[in-house]
Amino acid sequence: MFVFLNGRLIPAADAVVSVFDRGFLYGDGLFETLRVMKGVPLDWDGHWRRLAHGAETLKVKLPFTSEVLRAQARELSRHNQLPEAILRLTLSRGVGSRGYSPRGADTPTFIMSLHPAPVLGPRAPQWKLHTASLRLPTGDALSGCKSASKLLYVLARAAAEAAGANDALLLNVRGELAESASGNLFWLEQETVHTPPLESGALPGTTRELVLGWCAEHRLVFCETVAKRARLLRASGCFLTLSSLGVVEVTALDGKTIPTASLTRRIRKGVLSSWRRMAKRVE
Amino acid sequence: MFVFLNGRLIPAADAVVSVFDRGFLYGDGLFETLRVMKGVPLDWDGHWRRLAHGAETLKVKLPFTSEVLRAQARELSRHNQLPEAILRLTLSRGVGSRGYSPRGADTPTFIMSLHPAPVLGPRAPQWKLHTASLRLPTGDALSGCKSASKLLYVLARAAAEAAGANDALLLNVRGELAESASGNLFWLEQETVHTPPLESGALPGTTRELVLGWCAEHRLVFCETVAKRARLLRASGCFLTLSSLGVVEVTALDGKTIPTASLTRRIRKGVLSSWRRMAKRVE
Repeated sequence: MFVFLNGRLIPAADAVVSVFDRGFLYGDGLFETLRVMKGVPLDWDGHWRRLAHGAETLKVKLPFTSEVLRAQARELSRHNQLPEAILRLTLSRGVGSRGYSPRGADTPTFIMSLHPAPVLGPRAPQWKLHTASLRLPTGDALSGCKSASKLLYVLARAAAEAAGANDALLLNVRGELAESASGNLFWLEQETVHTPPLESGALPGTTRELVLGWCAEHRLVFCETVAKRARLLRASGCFLTLSSLGVVEVTALDGKTIPTASLTRRIRKGVLSSWRRMAKRVE
Repeated sequence: MFVFLNGRLIPAADAVVSVFDRGFLYGDGLFETLRVMKGVPLDWDGHWRRLAHGAETLKVKLPFTSEVLRAQARELSRHNQLPEAILRLTLSRGVGSRGYSPRGADTPTFIMSLHPAPVLGPRAPQWKLHTASLRLPTGDALSGCKSASKLLYVLARAAAEAAGANDALLLNVRGELAESASGNLFWLEQETVHTPPLESGALPGTTRELVLGWCAEHRLVFCETVAKRARLLRASGCFLTLSSLGVVEVTALDGKTIPTASLTRRIRKGVLSSWRRMAKRVE
């Protein structure tokens, strides 16, 4: 497997960064995870916008343009003969002086790596959620960024797996629903689609945007709703959106069953169709 | 300069980790910063206890014993001819599979690096603080760990420096005083010494412990106090404790002067004396 590292394609085993890279020292960086379909990274522009917004927040200069990297991402997929994959973009502030101050760290590190992924089918994966004890901050300057400081998510996910679940439900410090460790959260109340507002601490997900668009197009009532965990247990359906897997159905929360819903399947199909159109458009 | 990397002393320029190390991908790791005096890492046991507690929280196995690493740290100081220095210990979960789940990542990375530091004198550095807009969670399982997911601290510090200050004052999500980006916070009200409780989100600092011990020994009234920012502006003195620099006096907050206090100087001298005794005891 080859990796794109600061402008060069190199074997994964040789892809290394300094132990003084601030991404390693402090999680001082950003990342994006994109689905690659037929060699095309999906919704590149949406992911790039979020990365560029994050880079502005962190005051890290993006070392390549969107156009150059998009072309390199396709080249990476060809070179690795991996047309169906997950692509990770990583931007870190690079090496600086000791301490939190980012002064003097002005040569960022940029990495793209590919990871094998199964072809996406119409059936949504079914996941169980476990409520994390660690709480997210409510929406702040950082919650709009997909930062590389993700230890809270790692521990929440590990606790979920230890409890026999697939992913963690994350609440914010006010006890409101925010997101899952891996994706955005949605729930259904009959034909109404709810999701937590970004102010609750959810990441502005690119697939979340796609679902919002799909709902508008199909004249479904759609609400950004501040709610507590109990509301999920009364929902008529629940799902997550992940850039890697599309729509994932949630069938249980903390051991309590959540009904499956045909609307979830329709929305999954809608997202898959959009993705296929995106892949086709670029080919 | 030589670096200790997974059991070997190697030149800093060759000290690298995989781009798939979870420390780099997710800030999935821990660190400690210790003062080295006359070649002796100070309060090793205190830092080790916190690191071991963090490793337990993260469920990462420490790959070396305290005794081996303490000896290697002294060797590092000798080898680099740097008896006065700052020592950083870094533990990361190492390489695993893609995604937040730590499953399969069972070969942690352990690094020790030395950084030049001036000899400590009796005069406390004088710092200005700037209140960060980003807020810390209140005390949770993670706030007891010195984690490598520190982007919030980096951005708070950068904003402070942009405002002409030296460090950031961090409040928690309830608006209570927590700590500074680089150290624990103390303030004086006449002869009473106050510091935020750990429940407010402060890191359990080793130098904080030393100050508490010094206060008890010198029969000073000492309180863990939940307080808002305004209380600092009415204080009769204010200081920070850093493992790298000892006691640092705070002379201004957001442009407003905070009085200097002779008690701050006494406490700094107390910390320095303890450190010198520690260095001597081990020699």
